[in-house]
Amino acid sequence: MTGDEIVTRLRAALGDRVDTSPASLAAARADKSGHAASGTPLAIVHAAAVSDVQATLRIATETGTPVVTRGAGTGLAGGANAGDGEIVLSVRAMDRIVEVEPDDLVAVVEPGILNAALNAELAQHGLWWAPDPASRAISTVGGNIATGAGGLLCAKYGVVRDAVLGVDVVLADGRLLRLGRRTVKGVTGLDLTSLMVGSEGTLGVIVGATLKLRRLVPGDVCTIVAVFPGVRAAASASAAVTASGIQPAVMELMDAASLAAVHALLGMHAPQAGAAQLTIQTDGPLSTAESEMIAGLLRGLGGSVAVSHDADEGERLLAIRRAMHPAMETLGTTLIEDVSVPRSALPAMFDEIARVERAFGLVIPTVAHAGDGNLHPNFVFDGPDVPPVVWEAADELFRAALRLGGTLTGEHGVGVLKRRWLADELGDDQWELQRRIKSVFDPLGILNPGKVFAS
Amino acid sequence: MTGDEIVTRLRAALGDRVDTSPASLAAARADKSGHAASGTPLAIVHAAAVSDVQATLRIATETGTPVVTRGAGTGLAGGANAGDGEIVLSVRAMDRIVEVEPDDLVAVVEPGILNAALNAELAQHGLWWAPDPASRAISTVGGNIATGAGGLLCAKYGVVRDAVLGVDVVLADGRLLRLGRRTVKGVTGLDLTSLMVGSEGTLGVIVGATLKLRRLVPGDVCTIVAVFPGVRAAASASAAVTASGIQPAVMELMDAASLAAVHALLGMHAPQAGAAQLTIQTDGPLSTAESEMIAGLLRGLGGSVAVSHDADEGERLLAIRRAMHPAMETLGTTLIEDVSVPRSALPAMFDEIARVERAFGLVIPTVAHAGDGNLHPNFVFDGPDVPPVVWEAADELFRAALRLGGTLTGEHGVGVLKRRWLADELGDDQWELQRRIKSVFDPLGILNPGKVFAS
Ligand SMILES: Cc1cc2nc3c(=O)[nH]c(=O)nc-3n(C[C@H](O)[C@H](O)[C@H](O)COP(=O)(O)OP(=O)(O)OC[C@H]3O[C@@H](n4cnc5c(N)ncnc54)[C@H](O)[C@@H]3O)c2cc1C
Ligand SMILES: Cc1cc2nc3c(=O)[nH]c(=O)nc-3n(C[C@H](O)[C@H](O)[C@H](O)COP(=O)(O)OP(=O)(O)OC[C@H]3O[C@@H](n4cnc5c(N)ncnc54)[C@H](O)[C@@H]3O)c2cc1C
Repeated sequence: MTGDEIVTRLRAALGDRVDTSPASLAAARADKSGHAASGTPLAIVHAAAVSDVQATLRIATETGTPVVTRGAGTGLAGGANAGDGEIVLSVRAMDRIVEVEPDDLVAVVEPGILNAALNAELAQHGLWWAPDPASRAISTVGGNIATGAGGLLCAKYGVVRDAVLGVDVVLADGRLLRLGRRTVKGVTGLDLTSLMVGSEGTLGVIVGATLKLRRLVPGDVCTIVAVFPGVRAAASASAAVTASGIQPAVMELMDAASLAAVHALLGMHAPQAGAAQLTIQTDGPLSTAESEMIAGLLRGLGGSVAVSHDADEGERLLAIRRAMHPAMETLGTTLIEDVSVPRSALPAMFDEIARVERAFGLVIPTVAHAGDGNLHPNFVFDGPDVPPVVWEAADELFRAALRLGGTLTGEHGVGVLKRRWLADELGDDQWELQRRIKSVFDPLGILNPGKVFAS
Repeated sequence: MTGDEIVTRLRAALGDRVDTSPASLAAARADKSGHAASGTPLAIVHAAAVSDVQATLRIATETGTPVVTRGAGTGLAGGANAGDGEIVLSVRAMDRIVEVEPDDLVAVVEPGILNAALNAELAQHGLWWAPDPASRAISTVGGNIATGAGGLLCAKYGVVRDAVLGVDVVLADGRLLRLGRRTVKGVTGLDLTSLMVGSEGTLGVIVGATLKLRRLVPGDVCTIVAVFPGVRAAASASAAVTASGIQPAVMELMDAASLAAVHALLGMHAPQAGAAQLTIQTDGPLSTAESEMIAGLLRGLGGSVAVSHDADEGERLLAIRRAMHPAMETLGTTLIEDVSVPRSALPAMFDEIARVERAFGLVIPTVAHAGDGNLHPNFVFDGPDVPPVVWEAADELFRAALRLGGTLTGEHGVGVLKRRWLADELGDDQWELQRRIKSVFDPLGILNPGKVFAS
C-alpha cells in the first residue's frame, strides 16, 4: 500500500485529527536532541481519545506501517523522531486529569498532560508527583513514563519507576490493556507496569497512568551555593555530602565550561577561571539545620559557600543550572551524554572526562545530578551530523562509566543516539531476550522501529 | 528418561549436593501455607554456587524436567511446593554477602541469605535493607525478591521493588544474565530487574542481587496502641491517620477474632469482646511529636490509647501482632488471603468481610497492614484440603476487593493457592501476554510449572 493510501485510510477513520501540513511533518522529524530523522513522516494523528489511538494502531497493523508515538517531543535521545513512511501518533492532546484521590495519594491522568500542569493542579490539594525533569514545564507525563525520566530530586524522592502504580496501554494491534493497580502493594502476576516505564514507545502506547503521589513537603527550602577551585574538588565535596548521611533534595554540579557558558548566556560576570560550582537545596522540617551542616562540611573542604533561606533567591540560584541546555544550544549542535555512576565514583568519572578531553582535543562541558551520580557531558559541534571524533570520544566516555560500575543512560533513554551501545551494556544474551520480549508486545515490529534496539 | 536416570545425571554433575533423603523430599513438598504438593519430588539440589544452579538447569533442560526453586520455604502461596517428577533447586546455602558499599548505599548478596542476617550485618555499617516481611528472621532475600515481599514498613519505606537495583539470573537453559545496575538512576533498555521481582520462580533463578540500602533512621521509635470497640472504628481511625498526612512507620490492625486468638496463645488476659486494636509506630527525628499528634487524633475518634517511648516495650507490643501466624496455626489449617485495597477503602473492605462471614457462616480472623491497605483475612479449617465453602467465601472476598479498586495479592504472591483468580484480575489479554513473556524466558515451561499461571 502506498503512503497516500495509508493516509486516506487514516483520514477515513480519524477525519481532521490527521495532519499532513508540511510544517507539522517537518517538526515531527526531530525532538530536542538536535538530531532529526532523515525523510519525512506520512502524517501526524492528533489523538483526542483512547479510541483514536486504537484506530490508528489497527490501521498501522493492517498496513504494516511503523508508528512513532510522540508526547511533547522534548526527548534528548531522538526517540520521538519520525521519518519516511512512518505515522506519528501524538497523544499531546489527551491531557485530562481524570481523578485525584488525596486520601489514597493517587491520581489518574491522560498521557499528554504536561508535568508542570499536573503539579500545579495537585498543589491545590497539597500534593505533588515527584518526578521533576528539568523539562517539567514542557514535557508530558506520558513521555516522562516512556523515558523513565529523572530529574533533580531523584536521590531524595525517587525516579518515575517509583511513582507509577499502573498504566493503560494500547498494543500494536489496537487492544487496550490495563496494567498495574491503584494500591500501595500488589504482586498479582508479572510487573508489566515497570516494563512499560522506560520502554520508549517500543512496546505500546501509554494512554493513561495511575500515579503515586506525595504530600507537599512542609518547611522552607534552603539553598547552598559552593564554589570550588576545580571540578574534582567539587565532585569530591558532593561525594562527601552524600557520605555524611544528610540527604539533600537537590545537589547539582556544574564544571567550569558549563558555568562559563551559562554566565555568558545570562549576562552575568564571568566566573573565576576553572571554578566549579555545587548548588544544593535542603527541604523538610530539618531543612535549616541540614543546610548549616552541609555548609560547614563544604567550607571545611575548601569551598566558598553562601546559604540562602529565601525561596525566590533559591529559585534564581537554581535557574543558573537550569539554563545549561539553552546555553549549550547557543554554542552549536550538542550530543548530550547521560552516563550514571555510583555516587562515590563521581570524582573518578570527572577524571575520565578530563582524560577524554585531552585525548581528543575537545572541551566537554559537564553538569551532574551529583546527588545520584548522573552526569551530562555535552559534546558541541557545528552542523546537523555528529562528527566521527565525537562518537569516538563518547564511546570512550561510555566505556569509562561502565568500568566504574555505571550505566549508559541515567534518564534520557536510548532512542537512536545511544542504541549503538545498548548490547555492550546488556550483553548479547540479554539484548536478544529484550528483543524477544518486544516481539511479544509487537510481533510485526511496527512500534518505533530502529529505536532502542538497532537492527 | 526415568526419574532415576535424571537423579543419576544430577549426581554425576553435582555429587553430594544432590539430596534424596525421604525426610528432605517430604519437607520440600510444602511451604508455610499449610498446603503441600501431591506426590514427592525427585531430588533436592543444594546449590552452593552459581555453577551448581547452571548445571542443574542444563540437565533439567536436556531432560525436560520441571524445576522448583526454593529459598527458605516460608512462602504462603504454595509457590515453592514441589511434587512428582520435579527437581527442587534450593539456593538457601548460597548465603554470602559479597559486598557492602556504605557510600553508595549498595550491597551485593547471594540469594540464600536470611533477611534478618543481612540486616544484622548492615546495622554494623549504620545501614539497612528496608523490606521487612514479618518472616524476616526465617525468609531469604532471594525469596523476598521472587515474591515481591512486603512487610510492616512498606507505606513509609517502600516495597521490595523499590529496593532492588539489579539481579543476576540463571535462565532455564543455564545461561547467566546480569540484569539491572548499581547506580541510583538507569534506563538502559527494558527494566527486566522489575520483571524478576515477584516472578515466583517462573522466569529464572535469582543467584545474586544488588540491593538499594538506606541509612538507619536516627531518633527513637514511639509505639501507640489504640483499642476501639469494633473493627470498623479501628479501620476508620487508621484511614484518618493516613489522611492526616503524618506517615507512621508501622500501622497494624487486628480484629477481634485475631486479638482473641493471639491473647490465648500468649496467655494474656482476654480482650474486651469485639474490641479491635491498632498498633502504630513512629520513627525519625520527629517521632515523639508525631506520636502525640496521632494519639490525640485516635482519642478524638473514641480510641483507648496508650503511648510508649521505650523501644523494648514497643517490640513487646508489636510482638502481639507478630504472633498472629502461630496463633492461627494452633487453630487448624489456614488459607491466608492477602487482598490489598486503596487505603481509604479499608473500612468498606472490613464491611465486606463481615458480610462474607454472615453469608457463609464463617469466622474470618483478619489483620491488616493498615498503613498500606493490605489485609490478611484468615480462613481456618481442619485437615489438609481447603473445603469448597472456604474457596467460595474467598472468591467473594476477592471480588469485593476488586470492586473496591483492590488487588488479589498485596505481598504473598499467586503460587498455587491464588492462581485460579489470576486471569480475573489481569483480564484474558494481559494473562495471555504474561504467559508469552514467560515463554521467552522459559520456552520449555520447566520453571515452576503450574504456579502463578495455571494451565
Ligand atoms: C531543557 C531540557 C531539559 C531536560 N531535562 C531532563 C531531565 O532533567 N531529566 C530527564 O529525564 N529528561 C530531561 N529532558 C529530556 C526530556 O524532557 C524527557 O525525556 C521527557 O521525559 C520527554 O517527554 P516528552 O513528552 O517530550 O516525550 P517525547 O520526546 O515526545 O518522547 C520521548 C520518548 O517517549 C516515547 N513516548 C512519549 N509519549 C509516549 C506515550 N504516551 N506512550 C508511549 N511512548 C511514548 C516516544 O516515542 C519517545 O521514544 C530534558 C529536555 C530538555 C529539552
Ligand atoms: C510467619 C510468617 C510471616 C510472614 N510475613 C510476611 C510478610 O509480612 N510479608 C510478606 O510479603 N510475606 C510474608 N510471609 C511469606 C514469606 O515469608 C515470603 O513470601 C518470603 O518472601 C518467602 O521467602 P522464602 O525464602 O521463604 O521463599 P520460598 O518460600 O522458598 O519461595 C517463595 C517463592 O519464591 C520462589 N523463589 C525463592 N527463591 C528464589 C530464587 N532465588 N530465585 C527464583 N525464585 C525463587 C519460589 O519458587 C517460590 O515461588 C510470611 C510467612 C510466615 C511463615
